[in-house]
Amino acid sequence: MDLSLFLEIFHKLHTEYFFFMKPSAHFGPGPSQIYFTVEDHLRKAFREGIPSLGHRTQAFESIFKNTTENLRTLLGAPADFHVFFAASATEIWERSIQNLVIEKSFHLVNGSFSNRYFEIATLLGKSAEKITAPLGEAFSSDVKVHPDTELIGLTHNETSTGVSLSMDFVNQFRTTHPHSLIVVDAVSSLPYPQFDYTKIDSVFFSVQKGFGLPAGLGVWLVNERCMAKAESLLAQGHRIGTYHSLPFYLQNAKKNQTPETPNVLGIYLLGKVVEDFLRRGIQTIRKETEYKSAILYQILDNHPFLSGFVKDKKTRSQTVIVANTGEKTDWLNNELTKMGIQPGDGYGANKKTQLRFANFPAHSKEQYEWLVDSLEKLKN
Amino acid sequence: MDLSLFLEIFHKLHTEYFFFMKPSAHFGPGPSQIYFTVEDHLRKAFREGIPSLGHRTQAFESIFKNTTENLRTLLGAPADFHVFFAASATEIWERSIQNLVIEKSFHLVNGSFSNRYFEIATLLGKSAEKITAPLGEAFSSDVKVHPDTELIGLTHNETSTGVSLSMDFVNQFRTTHPHSLIVVDAVSSLPYPQFDYTKIDSVFFSVQKGFGLPAGLGVWLVNERCMAKAESLLAQGHRIGTYHSLPFYLQNAKKNQTPETPNVLGIYLLGKVVEDFLRRGIQTIRKETEYKSAILYQILDNHPFLSGFVKDKKTRSQTVIVANTGEKTDWLNNELTKMGIQPGDGYGANKKTQLRFANFPAHSKEQYEWLVDSLEKLKN
Repeated sequence: MDLSLFLEIFHKLHTEYFFFMKPSAHFGPGPSQIYFTVEDHLRKAFREGIPSLGHRTQAFESIFKNTTENLRTLLGAPADFHVFFAASATEIWERSIQNLVIEKSFHLVNGSFSNRYFEIATLLGKSAEKITAPLGEAFSSDVKVHPDTELIGLTHNETSTGVSLSMDFVNQFRTTHPHSLIVVDAVSSLPYPQFDYTKIDSVFFSVQKGFGLPAGLGVWLVNERCMAKAESLLAQGHRIGTYHSLPFYLQNAKKNQTPETPNVLGIYLLGKVVEDFLRRGIQTIRKETEYKSAILYQILDNHPFLSGFVKDKKTRSQTVIVANTGEKTDWLNNELTKMGIQPGDGYGANKKTQLRFANFPAHSKEQYEWLVDSLEKLKN
Repeated sequence: MDLSLFLEIFHKLHTEYFFFMKPSAHFGPGPSQIYFTVEDHLRKAFREGIPSLGHRTQAFESIFKNTTENLRTLLGAPADFHVFFAASATEIWERSIQNLVIEKSFHLVNGSFSNRYFEIATLLGKSAEKITAPLGEAFSSDVKVHPDTELIGLTHNETSTGVSLSMDFVNQFRTTHPHSLIVVDAVSSLPYPQFDYTKIDSVFFSVQKGFGLPAGLGVWLVNERCMAKAESLLAQGHRIGTYHSLPFYLQNAKKNQTPETPNVLGIYLLGKVVEDFLRRGIQTIRKETEYKSAILYQILDNHPFLSGFVKDKKTRSQTVIVANTGEKTDWLNNELTKMGIQPGDGYGANKKTQLRFANFPAHSKEQYEWLVDSLEKLKN
């Protein structure tokens, strides 16, 4: 066999392998690319018997303690923020309304996910109110939030549109609404943002986005104001749920336990990835995130047929970057996929005209440079 | 170095390895021993990109379809039973009461887990009633269940005590209470029991017991009577939850999807293990289960200082076998652990006087023979 035939066959096999196996870079905004250490952690978990580990054992308690303490360190959250585990951020939408609202919640809606939080409050029978910003935009700084709402729901990073709220915007409500609980959905931004934990009462995320883990775990941080509110609901005879009520969460968390048999392996893996992030350094992760988003926005702003969906640079998300791809969407998606790059589809009504690119710690600088080079090549 | 020194060091290392690594047989009743194929399935899942898989993709839909259809086949459940995924059986306790009860539920309580189902109904504000059987016993056949209860909660296999309800007992309520929904907690018995699905309306389990999987997934089967009841609650203005209400589950399941981002990897692994079980044959699994329980009960009934906690042979669980170990509990636990055998602790008040042994498909005949031989050796 001569060399060229060999190379041809090799190339063909390689290409087919490429098509049928997972892509080399997965930019879907969640479930997203798995952090590169996870498979090793999983192997170690099996060696150590973690998948069989009872959740009332000392070994589990030490995993719980390690994961929650390291997470607080990574997020820069004070010790008086409790860390609880749910099945998903969707569950936390429900539990937060159940535990923290008697009557009135207020939601700042600028996309599908912020709106779902509002809808869940409505389904739970609350007088939920919302103000809506146009898709791809943030809110005006003088936004009118009902003065006596019990809970203000903010979506720090709207995954459907790639809009992020500025910290000044998030932080204003502590002054304007000192009696309301400020609950921040940071599902697709953490661990990137550094929140000022004196200005918010609760924040939550799910692990399949910025933490590069398989889906099936939501993480909910709450302060003592939230605990007191849930206790007062309970004292007044309101129903705040059963096994995932805040008081029952806390009663168990004090023993480093969970109310029910949780996703033990998920909690273990989260702890391991948080250790990896701490070793890399949160500042390094932040600066890399900013570098990667900068080079992608740069080409979107200088491309013949692509553009950034979010125009206002101050509200552009660092972690979910949405590109207007118009009628080239399918073609671009195909071309990138052929190269081994999997973009995320546009969301909802924009499914056929946009592509989304997650920019999480799992996405390396090299992968982002490769993505940008590829978009450069596809200019013509 | 002479040979005896070498052997001594080798033995020491081996022993320490033994203590710090997972035991060779894990008989805790859940989380329990992982089915032997799971680690391979997990490796394949990573190769195929399952941990990053979006839950709105065709690939996920085909996993959902495969898992639910094979599960129905394995359980012998008819096609009109819907299969929904929750985070845990604890969640299903809550969701089933929320969706199926306006006012009255009735619970047959003979241990901690059946009682928790009752407690959850109470916490949700229902007029929950219960009758209680002594620990280690089943109910008398003429048990008086309130005639106009909306839901009868039965725990097929009480994990805390090792008591199983007979199928005749379970099946009687369809005749005596034709208007009540019959909901069966089969958390620690499935896939062993063959239920008569014309006699029950719902059954649920979690995967970390009889399916030999890591914890973090509950599975809920419901028939059309349950769907109709949830719809009627909704129509009457009752709150039945948000993303995990039965109508919303079904709306998504019709597309082979889930309401929220689920534990995708857990659903994939469950599908793979169910395929393995089907290949092995459910009859083989049942006969092996009965063989293994027979040899363990045999030695418990003929042991100088051990005995079976459940005296009535007809109500002895096939899948969770509870031994009275009295003041020898700690000693026995230590001796078995040194051999590489990890028993489950007794539950609650019996923690210091009983040991529990799970008998799931993950536990091989050889492991059970080893366990029995070891108990034989420890007779003196």
